[in-house]
Amino acid sequence: MKNELQIKFGQRIRELRKERGWSQEEFADRCGLDRTYVSGIERGVRNPTLEVIGVISSGLNVNISILFD
Amino acid sequence: MKNELQIKFGQRIRELRKERGWSQEEFADRCGLDRTYVSGIERGVRNPTLEVIGVISSGLNVNISILFD
Repeated sequence: MKNELQIKFGQRIRELRKERGWSQEEFADRCGLDRTYVSGIERGVRNPTLEVIGVISSGLNVNISILFD
Repeated sequence: MKNELQIKFGQRIRELRKERGWSQEEFADRCGLDRTYVSGIERGVRNPTLEVIGVISSGLNVNISILFD
C-alpha cells in the first residue's frame, strides 16, 4: 500500500509528540508549521519532504533516525 | 544552511550505493527512479519526499533509519 509509510511515520510522530505532553497546536508552533499540516502528517495523509522531516525532528529534539525506529 | 540536510542525505546515499558497487544508473534502475534524479539527490540539490526516501531505502535494502545514521 502506497500510504503505508506515511501512516507509520505519522503514528511515530504522534507517539513522540504525546510523550512530550504537547498538543498538536503546541507542537506545530514549536516546528513553525501549521496545525492542520501537522494533523495531516499524523494521520498519514501528507507526504512530507526531507526538509519538513528535518524541521519535525528539530521540533522534537531528536535525530531523524529516531523518527524511523 | 537550508540545504545542509539535503547534502548530508545525498552523501549518505552515495556512500551506501558505492558500498554495494553500483553505478548511479544501476542504482536508479533498482529504485525505478531516473538517473538524473538520483544524481540530484546525491549532490544534495533535491528535496525528496518521504515516499521517495522509502523507495531509496528499499532499493538499498535498508531501514530508513540507516539513511540518517
